[in-house]
Amino acid sequence: MGYQGLIKKYKKYLPVTEKTPDITLLEGDTPLIKSTNLSKELGINLYFKYDGLNPTGSFKDRGMVMAVAKAVEEGSKAIICASTGNTSASAAAFAARYNLDCYVLIPDGNIAMGKLAQALMYGAKVISIEGNFDDALNIVRDIAKTEPITLVNSVNPYRLQGQKTAAFEVCDELGKAPDYLAIPVGNAGNISAYWMGFNEYKNDGKINNLPTLLGFQAEGAAPIVKNEVVKDPQTIATAIKIGNPASWDKAVNALKESNGQINAISDEKILEAYKMLASREGIFAEPASCITLAGVLNLKEKGVFKGGETVVCVLTGNGLKDPTTSLSQIPTPQKIKATKENVMKLINEK
Amino acid sequence: MGYQGLIKKYKKYLPVTEKTPDITLLEGDTPLIKSTNLSKELGINLYFKYDGLNPTGSFKDRGMVMAVAKAVEEGSKAIICASTGNTSASAAAFAARYNLDCYVLIPDGNIAMGKLAQALMYGAKVISIEGNFDDALNIVRDIAKTEPITLVNSVNPYRLQGQKTAAFEVCDELGKAPDYLAIPVGNAGNISAYWMGFNEYKNDGKINNLPTLLGFQAEGAAPIVKNEVVKDPQTIATAIKIGNPASWDKAVNALKESNGQINAISDEKILEAYKMLASREGIFAEPASCITLAGVLNLKEKGVFKGGETVVCVLTGNGLKDPTTSLSQIPTPQKIKATKENVMKLINEK
Repeated sequence: MGYQGLIKKYKKYLPVTEKTPDITLLEGDTPLIKSTNLSKELGINLYFKYDGLNPTGSFKDRGMVMAVAKAVEEGSKAIICASTGNTSASAAAFAARYNLDCYVLIPDGNIAMGKLAQALMYGAKVISIEGNFDDALNIVRDIAKTEPITLVNSVNPYRLQGQKTAAFEVCDELGKAPDYLAIPVGNAGNISAYWMGFNEYKNDGKINNLPTLLGFQAEGAAPIVKNEVVKDPQTIATAIKIGNPASWDKAVNALKESNGQINAISDEKILEAYKMLASREGIFAEPASCITLAGVLNLKEKGVFKGGETVVCVLTGNGLKDPTTSLSQIPTPQKIKATKENVMKLINEK
Repeated sequence: MGYQGLIKKYKKYLPVTEKTPDITLLEGDTPLIKSTNLSKELGINLYFKYDGLNPTGSFKDRGMVMAVAKAVEEGSKAIICASTGNTSASAAAFAARYNLDCYVLIPDGNIAMGKLAQALMYGAKVISIEGNFDDALNIVRDIAKTEPITLVNSVNPYRLQGQKTAAFEVCDELGKAPDYLAIPVGNAGNISAYWMGFNEYKNDGKINNLPTLLGFQAEGAAPIVKNEVVKDPQTIATAIKIGNPASWDKAVNALKESNGQINAISDEKILEAYKMLASREGIFAEPASCITLAGVLNLKEKGVFKGGETVVCVLTGNGLKDPTTSLSQIPTPQKIKATKENVMKLINEK
């Protein structure tokens, strides 16, 4: 038997009891891909932690397996979440597999096409509301208080417990923590979870160092950077289009403890990095993920890196989740008559 | 250091020389997911080899890493392929990463949205032609004969060499070959590659048994089942919409040697299995992949399985590649006003 999922692999570090059911979609165990081209240009050891290769295409599976395991352990028959898409896909998949009802609240205009397809295919009851993510989160929190339905948003403490395993995997792979960890910040759960993971590994003697955290928010959805709630967040990076992050305090604390920094990146720079990551490294990640590469490029310009540092960019979701954004970036080809001559003419065009 | 890609892991079995460059996108190493619900109902040990979790979302990365490594070894600066989408995505990704030019010919109306987005984002020159896959393949074969451009379709022998690693992984995981391997058949390269892999592992003493192969073609694109070329293949499963398979003879031979069988499955049954796989097992695969589950259900009805057999369904591609087909299957939800009462009303509806 090979890999058996996150709960079995990292049991020692997770809130698992004898009664926790052995559930898995074989989430986690995602590749840490070494940069081929950009590393050389930037003069750093650049890696991409590609969590888009989780079973539902995003890092959310790491936390969801833990949250659903605990929900089942506690006898719950239904789960609910508010989601810009990745959380709902993950919740719906685990619910399908373990026979729970699943309700997902999708805020108005905030969901990428692939993510909606996932939630529906996995059989969740998808409820689309007029309002933003924060409105949706308020409603599901209310419902979980009064109904026998488990809330699986990242306010569910088991979510961050599961998510911290990504930090373990990075360290297992490198044999140490990286010098810098660049990470998208939306609801701010993941940066908090990574920090928890690095610290637990250090306390356990698995690593001797801790990374400096580099958080990035989209300019139009940068509440932590601006230190104020954003009422109407706007960004093409829908996965981090959040104006009032649930794990705000935890993220600020992690940034402080790691001597890190958090910066805002424009949609234009996010889209540039999105194309660069695919066309230079062969990695297709969703726009929100690519903010980490955009951010690292920006900090390189500012002289933050001296050279030779190990930098890990967290890529939280698969580019296939959002084909619409990519197709809007590049013109689709015109159809031509099927002859060798016609094809050669196009090949010889520069 | 953990996993370092297929070429390093299975070097012994691959046509690798000292000059073969060490290239990888960390392809392969995909999960073999045990069925939670359908296994019980069918009375078999059902597994899904989910190759949709390769870096570009399909099994094509296994063969492409090998084909591109050899192209680079031979000094090639450009690669070309005809593709219904998965091959082009994979070729484009490796070309981006290793600085080759990449040209992909896409047949008319044969490509899923996500796959087109991938090829374009990875920076390939995408050429859309009037004609079907077989027309496109003829043109790229012609071009590769006269131009300094390496053909990376599965007629490139290194492709099947790389693809056979999926059989190795299944055996490594189970500690044996499964009793049955169910696999989609389009261009017929993959069934041939799996059979080669199982045989090499058996000859090397890694396994003692060989599986019975169960091949499946879509009813409207079933040349091997019908034993005649299909001039105008039609199916919703675009990845296997092929009327004149390149590896036809190899596939027929593999089926014969394994005492296997090949059957045609209707689009209706493919779509049923597509929804069933997502909503009962939490696995979202592209329609062509789901033909294996549809086929296993069909053979169960026919009494092929006695009970207790280990059956592996090969899932070749990620469901996110084709969001359009999934969204056409399930009505998208209407937006409602954001109140707890409105949401509870929908939750309580059955």
